[in-house]
Amino acid sequence: MRLLVINPNTSASVTERIVTVARAVATPGTEIVGVTAARGVPYIATRAEAIIGGAQVLEMLAEHRQGFDAAVVAAFGDPGLPGARELSSMPVVGMAEAAMLTACMLGRRFAIVTFSTVLLPWYRECVEYNGLVSRFAGISVAKRSLSSIDNVQAEMQSLLVELAQRAVVEHEADVVIFGGAPLAGLADKIRDRVPVPVIDATEAAVKQAETLVALRPRKASAGSFRSPDPKPSVGLSPPLAEMVSGPRTE
Amino acid sequence: MRLLVINPNTSASVTERIVTVARAVATPGTEIVGVTAARGVPYIATRAEAIIGGAQVLEMLAEHRQGFDAAVVAAFGDPGLPGARELSSMPVVGMAEAAMLTACMLGRRFAIVTFSTVLLPWYRECVEYNGLVSRFAGISVAKRSLSSIDNVQAEMQSLLVELAQRAVVEHEADVVIFGGAPLAGLADKIRDRVPVPVIDATEAAVKQAETLVALRPRKASAGSFRSPDPKPSVGLSPPLAEMVSGPRTE
Amino acid sequence: MRLLVINPNTSASVTERIVTVARAVATPGTEIVGVTAARGVPYIATRAEAIIGGAQVLEMLAEHRQGFDAAVVAAFGDPGLPGARELSSMPVVGMAEAAMLTACMLGRRFAIVTFSTVLLPWYRECVEYNGLVSRFAGISVAKRSLSSIDNVQAEMQSLLVELAQRAVVEHEADVVIFGGAPLAGLADKIRDRVPVPVIDATEAAVKQAETLVALRPRKASAGSFRSPDPKPSVGLSPPLAEMVSGPRTE
Amino acid sequence: MRLLVINPNTSASVTERIVTVARAVATPGTEIVGVTAARGVPYIATRAEAIIGGAQVLEMLAEHRQGFDAAVVAAFGDPGLPGARELSSMPVVGMAEAAMLTACMLGRRFAIVTFSTVLLPWYRECVEYNGLVSRFAGISVAKRSLSSIDNVQAEMQSLLVELAQRAVVEHEADVVIFGGAPLAGLADKIRDRVPVPVIDATEAAVKQAETLVALRPRKASAGSFRSPDPKPSVGLSPPLAEMVSGPRTE
Amino acid sequence: MRLLVINPNTSASVTERIVTVARAVATPGTEIVGVTAARGVPYIATRAEAIIGGAQVLEMLAEHRQGFDAAVVAAFGDPGLPGARELSSMPVVGMAEAAMLTACMLGRRFAIVTFSTVLLPWYRECVEYNGLVSRFAGISVAKRSLSSIDNVQAEMQSLLVELAQRAVVEHEADVVIFGGAPLAGLADKIRDRVPVPVIDATEAAVKQAETLVALRPRKASAGSFRSPDPKPSVGLSPPLAEMVSGPRTE
Amino acid sequence: MRLLVINPNTSASVTERIVTVARAVATPGTEIVGVTAARGVPYIATRAEAIIGGAQVLEMLAEHRQGFDAAVVAAFGDPGLPGARELSSMPVVGMAEAAMLTACMLGRRFAIVTFSTVLLPWYRECVEYNGLVSRFAGISVAKRSLSSIDNVQAEMQSLLVELAQRAVVEHEADVVIFGGAPLAGLADKIRDRVPVPVIDATEAAVKQAETLVALRPRKASAGSFRSPDPKPSVGLSPPLAEMVSGPRTE
Repeated sequence: MRLLVINPNTSASVTERIVTVARAVATPGTEIVGVTAARGVPYIATRAEAIIGGAQVLEMLAEHRQGFDAAVVAAFGDPGLPGARELSSMPVVGMAEAAMLTACMLGRRFAIVTFSTVLLPWYRECVEYNGLVSRFAGISVAKRSLSSIDNVQAEMQSLLVELAQRAVVEHEADVVIFGGAPLAGLADKIRDRVPVPVIDATEAAVKQAETLVALRPRKASAGSFRSPDPKPSVGLSPPLAEMVSGPRTE
Repeated sequence: MRLLVINPNTSASVTERIVTVARAVATPGTEIVGVTAARGVPYIATRAEAIIGGAQVLEMLAEHRQGFDAAVVAAFGDPGLPGARELSSMPVVGMAEAAMLTACMLGRRFAIVTFSTVLLPWYRECVEYNGLVSRFAGISVAKRSLSSIDNVQAEMQSLLVELAQRAVVEHEADVVIFGGAPLAGLADKIRDRVPVPVIDATEAAVKQAETLVALRPRKASAGSFRSPDPKPSVGLSPPLAEMVSGPRTE
Repeated sequence: MRLLVINPNTSASVTERIVTVARAVATPGTEIVGVTAARGVPYIATRAEAIIGGAQVLEMLAEHRQGFDAAVVAAFGDPGLPGARELSSMPVVGMAEAAMLTACMLGRRFAIVTFSTVLLPWYRECVEYNGLVSRFAGISVAKRSLSSIDNVQAEMQSLLVELAQRAVVEHEADVVIFGGAPLAGLADKIRDRVPVPVIDATEAAVKQAETLVALRPRKASAGSFRSPDPKPSVGLSPPLAEMVSGPRTE
Repeated sequence: MRLLVINPNTSASVTERIVTVARAVATPGTEIVGVTAARGVPYIATRAEAIIGGAQVLEMLAEHRQGFDAAVVAAFGDPGLPGARELSSMPVVGMAEAAMLTACMLGRRFAIVTFSTVLLPWYRECVEYNGLVSRFAGISVAKRSLSSIDNVQAEMQSLLVELAQRAVVEHEADVVIFGGAPLAGLADKIRDRVPVPVIDATEAAVKQAETLVALRPRKASAGSFRSPDPKPSVGLSPPLAEMVSGPRTE
Repeated sequence: MRLLVINPNTSASVTERIVTVARAVATPGTEIVGVTAARGVPYIATRAEAIIGGAQVLEMLAEHRQGFDAAVVAAFGDPGLPGARELSSMPVVGMAEAAMLTACMLGRRFAIVTFSTVLLPWYRECVEYNGLVSRFAGISVAKRSLSSIDNVQAEMQSLLVELAQRAVVEHEADVVIFGGAPLAGLADKIRDRVPVPVIDATEAAVKQAETLVALRPRKASAGSFRSPDPKPSVGLSPPLAEMVSGPRTE
Repeated sequence: MRLLVINPNTSASVTERIVTVARAVATPGTEIVGVTAARGVPYIATRAEAIIGGAQVLEMLAEHRQGFDAAVVAAFGDPGLPGARELSSMPVVGMAEAAMLTACMLGRRFAIVTFSTVLLPWYRECVEYNGLVSRFAGISVAKRSLSSIDNVQAEMQSLLVELAQRAVVEHEADVVIFGGAPLAGLADKIRDRVPVPVIDATEAAVKQAETLVALRPRKASAGSFRSPDPKPSVGLSPPLAEMVSGPRTE
C-alpha cells in the first residue's frame, strides 16, 4: 500500500517529521511518500492561510496522485479536504478528522491541545464542520510564544503535558488530541504523563487511511462526493486542470 | 462609497450581470467595481471548485483592495470569505450570508432555490457554516440541465418560480432566496408570482455591504478576525504575499 | 423613506435618545419618527414586562402605521416583533435581531454587553429564539446598580468598555453588541477603546430597516407571515381592532 | 386545592369546555375556577393574537390570583406563560408545556394533531421555545375549514383520528397530543382508535398543576423567575400595576 | 392505585428511604411497594453498573408487575427505563426524567446537585438522552468522599446546600434537582436555604407516576413503545422470559 | 494481535458469520475469537433486548478478556459498549460506532440500511448517543418480513440494494452502512450495485479495533472512562464480580 502524505505547509522539516512518525506507525508493507507545498506559508495557522493551503492540497493531489492507494492531508484543520475527497478516486483522510473520529472510540469527550492561540478559531471551526461539537471538551492552548515551529516539542513539552492534564480535570476530557503537524510524535513521548489516552493526529491519519483502503470503498458515482462533472478551466496547474476538466483515468 | 465586487468565477458575463444588478440597487453615490477571477472555472459548483475559487478571492482582494470601502464575495456559497475577512481591513460580505441573514428579518424560515443539483451540498454546508440550520427550510433545485450558464434565467424562469411556490407550500418557507450568481436580477422579475418575499442575493450583498460601511466598524486588533501576524510566504502573487507578510498600510 | 421607531418603554427620554442616534446614522432622505408607549413600564427588563410591551408594540404599530415604509421595534429583546411582522404590510425590524444578524457579518461570535443582570434571561431567550446560539459568545453584564436609566452611559461608560474588552479575551468574541435602548449612541463614543467591531443596536436596526425597504419585499400572502385572517375582537384599541379584523388597506 | 384556569381567548364556551374536562380529571378536593379574557379574539391562532393574549394572561392572573394554589394558562401555545411564572408566587403551568413534557414520559417522540394550519407556526415555535425539538415528531393539521370553533370536535373527529393514526406511521410518533383548547375532551373519546397513547392537553395541565402544588416549590427569590423588582407603571389595570409595582402580599 | 418502586441498587436501606419519601408525598389511596435488586451493586454510579442495573430493572419489573398501576425506576439516571417502557403495559417513570421534566415547569434552566463526581458522566448522558441539554444548567458535585451511602444526607447537608446556592449564582439555575436516590427526602429539609425551587427526584417520580395513571394512557400497539414481538429466549428469569416471549396477559 | 468478538445475541450462527467476515478483513497476524451470549435472545432488536444484551456483554467481556488486545461488541446498536469501555483495560469498539465514524471519512452524510422496522428506534437512538445526527441521512428499512435471521441476505439482497440506491437519491446519502450483524459480509457482494461507498459494520469494527491497538492508548486513570472504583457486588458471575470489585490485573 502506498500513502501520499500531503503537507500544505511549505516547511520541508515539518513534512519530514510527519513522514517519520507516519512510517513508524504504518503497517509493514505500507509505503509513505511525503510532499511539501510549493506555495503558501511555512506553517498554516489562520483561516486565510488555510484557504491558500487548501488550494495547494488540490494541486499537490493532482500532481502526485498516480500510484497511490490513499492520501492524507497532513495539517490539523484539514485544508482542502472536502474538495480533495470529491476529486480523488482514492480515499483521502484529514489529520484532524482522523484524530477526532478515532478519539470518539476511546471516550465520550475529546480535548485538543495545541501550541498557539492563533490556531484556536480555525480548529474550532473544524470541529464544527465535522459535526462533533457535542463530543468536544474544548481546546487548550499554550499562551507562550516560541522561537521556531521546529522547536515546539522541545521548548513546550512540559507545558503541553500540563495543558493535557488540565483538560482532563477542567474540561472533563476523556481523550486528548495533540493538534498541529509540528506536534507529530509528541504523544508517544509523554503518554505516561497524561492520565487518559492521547492521540497523535499523524498516527491516527495513517491508520485510518490504511483502514479505508482495507475496506475497499468504491469511488462514488452518485451522491455529493462523486467526481465533479468535467469542466473547462483557466490558469490551473496542468495536473489540476486535467483533474477538473479531463477524462479521469487514474 | 466604493464597493469591490469579487467574482471568483472566470466568466466575465457573470460579473457583468452581477455588476448591473448591484448598480441598480446601490445607494446613489455608491460606485461598484467588478473583478473577474483570472484562474479557476467559469462557474463554481462543487467543493473542489469553491476551494480553488476561495484562494482566488484572496488574490483578487489583495490586488484590488486599495481605494475601496467594502468588498463583496460574489458567489453564493461565499468561497474564501472567512479568510478575506481576516486579511482585509475593510468589511467583506458574502452573497450567501447576506441573503440568508437578510431573510431572517423577513420571516422565520428561508428556502434557497437554485438551478443545479450539483450546487446542493456546497450550499447546504454554507447554511451549516453560518449556523442557520434552524432557520432553513431546505433547498429546491431544478432537475433540468441547461445549455449555458448565461441562459439560465431565460430557460428556467417558469421552473424556478414553480420551485419557489412549492418551497412555500411543501417546506413552509416564509422567504425564498434565489441562490447562484447567474440568477442575479431574477427576483425582481418574478416577485409577483411568488407569494412570499424573494431575495436577490446580489442585491442583499450590496445593501449589507453599504450597511456595514455606514456602521463604521473598526478593523479588529483582537479576536479571531484581527489581521493575521505577518508571515513569510512562497509563490503567492505579490499583492497577496504583501498582505500575508508585509506591513499593512491600506 | 419614513421609518417608524416604536419604543415599547414609556420613557420619552429613551425614545428621544434613540431617535437622535437613528437620525445620525440614517441615509439622507430617511425621516425618523419615534413613538413612546402609553402603557407599561419606563424600561422593560423582564419577561413579564416584555409581554406587556409586546402588546403595546402592536397597538402602536396599528395606530401609527399609515405613511411609513418600515418600522423598528426599539427595545433590545424585540418585544412583539413576530406579531408585528405578521400584521404589518411593511417590513418590521427588531433592535436585537438587527444587531445580532449584522454582527454575524463582522465576525464568527458576538457578545452582548449590557448594564443590568435583570436583562440577562430575556436577552438570552432572544438569542435562542433567533436560532443564533452557535454564534453567541455570551452576555457580559455590569453588576453595579445605577441611579437612573438616563444616566447609564455617563455612570457606566468605563465599566461597559471593560466588559467589552473582557468579552473579547474571556468569551472569544469577534464582535460586541451594546444591548439595551439606553445604550444607544454609546458604541460610537468608545469604539476606539474596544479591540473589535462594536455594534450600536439602534444604528443596526435603522440601517437594516433601510436595507429591507431597498430590497422591495412584497407582503407575504402565504407562509407564516401572511396577514392573519380577519377575526372579530373585543376591547382592543380601534386601530388594532381594525388591523386584526378589518379589511387592510394600508 | 384551588386551580385558576386562565383562558386567554374571549370565548366563554371554550372556557366552559376546558373547565368541564378539568373538573373530570382533577383529584377530588381540587376546585377548578375558569376565567375568560375580556379583551382579544375568540380563538388565538397567530403570533400576533398570542401576543395580545399573553398580556391578557398577566392581567387575568393579577386580578384573580388571590386564593389559588396554582394557575393554568389554558391555550395551547402558552401565551404569557414565562411572564406569569415570573410575577406569580404560585406555580403556573401552560397547556402545551404540560402536554409535551408529559408525553416525554410515555414515549420518545410526540406528535401534535390540531385542526387548523394557521396554528402550525405558533405551535412549532412553542416546541422550540421549550427546547423539545429532538423529541418532536411533527404537527399534523386538518386542512378542512370549519364552521365554528365550538363544533370542531363534532365536525372533525374522524379526520383528527386519521391524522393521529398517520402521525404514528408517517412521523414515527410514540405519543399524540391533541393541541388547541377546543379539542379539550376529545382524547378520551377516541383513545381506542389511535394505536399509541393520546394526551389531552387540558388534562395534562391540570394534573401537572396538581403535581407542582404537591411538590411544595418555594417562590424563587433568585434566578430568572424571582419576582421582578418593583417598578412604576402607567396605564395597566390596577391589579397588574400592583403586581408590577407594589409590595406583593399574596 | 398501586405503584411499584423498583430500586436497581442492592441496598435495602436505600429502598426504605425512597419508599418512606414516596409514601409521604403520594395521594391518599396510593399504595407504594418497594423492591430491591437481588443482583448488582449497593449503589450504581457508573455506566457499567447502570447497564447491570438496567437488566435488573427488567427482571424486577417482570417478576413483580402483576397488580400494579404504574412503576417507578428508582435510581437517578433511569437504568433500564426505555426497555421497561417497551415491555410494560402500565406506565413506567424514571426518577431522573420525572425530576427534569417537572423542573422544566418551574423554570428555564435546571441544575443537578449530587454527592459524588463519579456520577457526573452518567447523569450528563441521561440529560442528553432526554434531549434536555438546552434546559440544563450543569451538575454540581461534592468533591468530598463519604463514609457510607446511608450517611450522605447527614454528612453532606451543608455542602449540598452550598452547591445548590452556587448553582443558582454561577450556573444561572432557576431550579435545583437533588440527584441520587440516597438524597431522597433532602429537598424538604433544606428548601428554605436555597433561593429557588428544589426538586426531590423521588417525590417527582411518584407524582408523575400518579399523573400518568390519571391520564389513562393506553399501551401502545404501534410506534416504538409497542410491546416487542414475542421472541424465544435463553437463560432469563422465568418472569422476564415470559414477558419477552409469551403471550402477555397482565 | 488477538481480538475478542462479543456477540450479545444467542445465535451461534450469527457469531460464525461475523467471525468469518472478520477474519477475511483482519490484518495477517490478527487472531479473531468469537463468543456467543449464553443468555438473551437470538437476535436483539428492541431497547429491552439491548438492555439484556448489554449486561451480557459485560459478563462475556469479564469472562473472556484475558489474552486479548481489543474487543468488538458485535451487534449494531452497541449494547453495553460504554460500560465495557469503562471496565476494560483494552480498547473496546462497537459495530455501529465503528461503521458510522468510518463513514464520516468517506462522505458527509451516511445512511443506514437494515432489514427490519423493529430495529429503527434502537438504531436511531444509537446515532443520537454518538452525537452524529448532523451527519445522518436516515435509516431505510425493508418492510417485508423474513423467514429466519439466517436467511436475511439470501432473501432480501435485491431489496436491500434497492434501499441503498434509494437512500442515495432520496436521503442524499454519500455512504451507506449495512446495519445488523446478520448482514455481515453483504457489502462486499453488492458493492458494485450501489453508487456510493458501502460499509460493512463488521469489517469496520475489526479494522478500527486494529487501529486502536496500533495507536497504543493507555487505560485511562482519570476522566469518565477510568476503571470504576472497586465495589462489592451480589449475584454477578464471578468474572464480572471480580472486574467490578477486585483488584484488576489484566
